Amino acid sequence: MTALYSVIKFKIIELIKSGKYQANDQLPTESEFCEQYDVSRTTVRLALQQLELEGYIKRIQGKGTFVSAAKIQTPIPHQITSFAEQMRGLRSESKVLELVVIPADHSIAELLKMKENEPVNKLVRVRYAEGEPLQYHTSYIPWKAAPGLAPEECTGSLFELLRTKYNIEISRGTESIEPILTDETISGHLLTNVGAPAFLAESLTYDKNEEVVEYAQIITRGDRTKFTVEQSYHS
Amino acid sequence: MTALYSVIKFKIIELIKSGKYQANDQLPTESEFCEQYDVSRTTVRLALQQLELEGYIKRIQGKGTFVSAAKIQTPIPHQITSFAEQMRGLRSESKVLELVVIPADHSIAELLKMKENEPVNKLVRVRYAEGEPLQYHTSYIPWKAAPGLAPEECTGSLFELLRTKYNIEISRGTESIEPILTDETISGHLLTNVGAPAFLAESLTYDKNEEVVEYAQIITRGDRTKFTVEQSYHS
Repeated sequence: MTALYSVIKFKIIELIKSGKYQANDQLPTESEFCEQYDVSRTTVRLALQQLELEGYIKRIQGKGTFVSAAKIQTPIPHQITSFAEQMRGLRSESKVLELVVIPADHSIAELLKMKENEPVNKLVRVRYAEGEPLQYHTSYIPWKAAPGLAPEECTGSLFELLRTKYNIEISRGTESIEPILTDETISGHLLTNVGAPAFLAESLTYDKNEEVVEYAQIITRGDRTKFTVEQSYHS
Repeated sequence: MTALYSVIKFKIIELIKSGKYQANDQLPTESEFCEQYDVSRTTVRLALQQLELEGYIKRIQGKGTFVSAAKIQTPIPHQITSFAEQMRGLRSESKVLELVVIPADHSIAELLKMKENEPVNKLVRVRYAEGEPLQYHTSYIPWKAAPGLAPEECTGSLFELLRTKYNIEISRGTESIEPILTDETISGHLLTNVGAPAFLAESLTYDKNEEVVEYAQIITRGDRTKFTVEQSYHS
């Protein structure tokens, strides 16, 4: 009962995974695929659309369809690490899109354990690895914990800045991770297709006094990254 | 430059997260939303479509649109745990869809560190929590490690079975996690919409002798689950 486009899609994934098609190789055209697999153009097009959304291939107008570079693998750490550490050796940087002080709305106030309308720093950054945008990171930091944050300070590690400038000792965090579809705003910043699958991580970070220091929404491109976990076994 | 449907979408998410709309509450109709936010029906429809794909709401034909139950949160463990353990107290069960012995193709052979065409057990299971299908789990297990697997044995923990029946001592695993879009086959088994965001985890599990015991592809519904991580901080 597998849909035909799905069969074609997994055949192509197979060829990429087995190394028959390598990164940056040009793929056959739609009509060549139609002939090769004896299926309709609609079927091939659906397969290629999903492969593009999932990041296996990229289509360059007027040039053709190419195999994407392998995804960047970032470990899901059980310790809080900076973006630079997560990128393990890749050249990383952050660009500040927005830093404003806003009144906490109902849900931000609940998350940061403060009163509604108390002031909050809202910091929006795009994070790059090797010049490629990978993360759209929105932080909410209680203003009273970090008054006078300046955009030019926020291009490195935020937690390092909180430690050195505000004497805040981070102690722990919780993160939840969901798969989402990118909308036009996010796609515009991360240079993905609209509707591409991505990770949404929501994190809460606490200091030594169990005060919430940051609530963050981190959208990571799924077409360019995968998370990895190492697991041990104790029976 | 945020698309209008995206603004409406996040307004509705906000109302759900803040508890204004609770699980199983009926939402306003499309036309009521149009009036309320003074936007077109196309805009409302796009917002509701994405909300449905991402699992925030469900539309029941002839009845209306309802807020979904909160997602099931499962920790990403650094120890290998069974599905039942991951579901922490929810009633869990597995249904075997397929158990066949197949010749290893090129990529399965590479992953399992065996020769092409050597026999492999392919086991496909759907896993349920409280009667709801959550995971579509495909396992590849070298036949020589586990000859004579029977479907009726595979409804509990596979690793427990490997230990008791075949004397295999699991020692560690690696897992990579990507966000994907469900296709018709997966959606049919997991009862999601086609194109709904989901997690694809690929795992390799090793025994005490560093032999690969299982390669698995595990698709977990993103509209019904989120992964959680606890993190400590060492500066």
